[in-house]
Amino acid sequence: MPSSNLKNSVKNTIERYSMINKGDTVIAAVSGGADSVALLYVLYSLKDELGFSLAACHVNHNLRGEESDSDERFVRRMCRFLDIPLYTASIKVNDLRQKHDSLEECARRLRYDFFESISKGRLIATAHTASDNCETILINMVRGTALSGICGIPAKRDNIIRPLLYNTREDIELYCSENCLDYVTDSTNLSDDYTRNKIRHKVVPLLKEINPSLFSAISRLSQSVSDDDRYLDKIASELMEKARTADNKYDVGILRTADECILRRIVTMIFKDNDIPPNMKAVESCVGIIRAGQGKINPCQFRFVQIRKKKLFVVTDREKFRRN
Amino acid sequence: MPSSNLKNSVKNTIERYSMINKGDTVIAAVSGGADSVALLYVLYSLKDELGFSLAACHVNHNLRGEESDSDERFVRRMCRFLDIPLYTASIKVNDLRQKHDSLEECARRLRYDFFESISKGRLIATAHTASDNCETILINMVRGTALSGICGIPAKRDNIIRPLLYNTREDIELYCSENCLDYVTDSTNLSDDYTRNKIRHKVVPLLKEINPSLFSAISRLSQSVSDDDRYLDKIASELMEKARTADNKYDVGILRTADECILRRIVTMIFKDNDIPPNMKAVESCVGIIRAGQGKINPCQFRFVQIRKKKLFVVTDREKFRRN
Repeated sequence: MPSSNLKNSVKNTIERYSMINKGDTVIAAVSGGADSVALLYVLYSLKDELGFSLAACHVNHNLRGEESDSDERFVRRMCRFLDIPLYTASIKVNDLRQKHDSLEECARRLRYDFFESISKGRLIATAHTASDNCETILINMVRGTALSGICGIPAKRDNIIRPLLYNTREDIELYCSENCLDYVTDSTNLSDDYTRNKIRHKVVPLLKEINPSLFSAISRLSQSVSDDDRYLDKIASELMEKARTADNKYDVGILRTADECILRRIVTMIFKDNDIPPNMKAVESCVGIIRAGQGKINPCQFRFVQIRKKKLFVVTDREKFRRN
Repeated sequence: MPSSNLKNSVKNTIERYSMINKGDTVIAAVSGGADSVALLYVLYSLKDELGFSLAACHVNHNLRGEESDSDERFVRRMCRFLDIPLYTASIKVNDLRQKHDSLEECARRLRYDFFESISKGRLIATAHTASDNCETILINMVRGTALSGICGIPAKRDNIIRPLLYNTREDIELYCSENCLDYVTDSTNLSDDYTRNKIRHKVVPLLKEINPSLFSAISRLSQSVSDDDRYLDKIASELMEKARTADNKYDVGILRTADECILRRIVTMIFKDNDIPPNMKAVESCVGIIRAGQGKINPCQFRFVQIRKKKLFVVTDREKFRRN
């Protein structure tokens, strides 16, 4: 795709997913790397046409000493040049890291907390690209997932939008180079993540030897599968509400009319509503008792899913369960 | 999974997919390799319990001279030992290979032609495993696919059944070793296919470093996604029939009630029925004219899809199209 098309392509993505409405304020998350610099400039070039206000935010992770501060100064200069407001946060990732938290995971969590704290109903645009999406889909597949994992990174979720999600890193580098945009080495690209590094540096290059348009192929897959997933969730939600009884249980007779794949989704939703961790085996067991019309399962500590008098319900308290 | 479970696991697969009914005859396709030897023995151990008759077939591809003949003798001896009928075919793959046909693709085509010629309504069991399925899914993903490609190799299609599809190569080798089953190097494993070789020998080992249970993870994904795909196809077929008019066109008003992902499937089905090659862009264009309620597209040579008087139809003849 020629660089001049990045703007049009991003505009299409924004419109296709109804990301931005007239009068909205969009805060672009800018690390200073090529992806986020391109994001900021493309949004800047679209803001009058699409009628939104633009701001930026930057998170200093304080992980690379002077280099981190220099990235922050770079972003400050850029925003001053474009005359757009900038929100910054300084985060000591290493101090706030919790047990079992990878550096990348912790930084991600803190970044999104910061986004939430500044957004106040405004949109946050992140610079995730088709390359990130492809990696995420492959990681989900390898670790084990159902359809939802193949959807990859959502183009829009709540107030987070990802206008670059269907463009590749190559599109972005071309755009930066043709528009003489300077950028720093992406400071959010911490990638201490063993799995993501292996996928990015070893698996993806092999797959690109098979198909140089890998990212486009996976992007199309991700979009088409996301539509399928949304539709199936809609059908499942509707049936789940139809089955809900006055006493907030579920009519097993109605649940049993569902196709296998819909029933599995309904059970997954019931689990989520009751803080039961997602677990394919437990979901299958629960589908089993629904099909049988009776039984109870114990999907995790302090939770029982039980069928009584043709109604399914979750018991969340041990004592209460004993009394029943 | 301990070896003793292979039989139970295969029995579960057979029952879950209603592969075999009492009184059926199953012809196992046996190359002599570990996978197909395990398939033959597992089916042999299940035939009385499930009430089916067992036969075998073997294709000599004549690609490795004396080695090919020796494989055939090996299979003959095994079937004589088990006292089951054997159908054999001798195919000169190299002579019958067509332009643009890879050796593997050609051998595959000839093998399935042979299966069809001998089956006469009986079932053919092939020895595809979770490892084959994982490779196929990765290949489809990399080359570009929608949901259907993530379903992988179907467990059952027409009279072809694949009882080992959810077992791994490791399960099979363990079964062979614990049951002292001898086997030859799989003669169907031609693999001159550049893509499959790269996936099998380079990509899969890297992914297994990330998750040693890769094949199980992909198997579960394949099963769950196949259910989703089947359900969406059912919904699409039903709406397509509802939209079909007396003059064998499609009522655009009815088509437009469909969700995007269902409409895409309906268009794909209409394309297939009219010998229009699958092509995502053409499908999107067709969805576009349906949403617009008017227009025509030319998805391939000698085919036009057109909307007139709120009905969609395919014109398959150029002259006829001109006259319209």
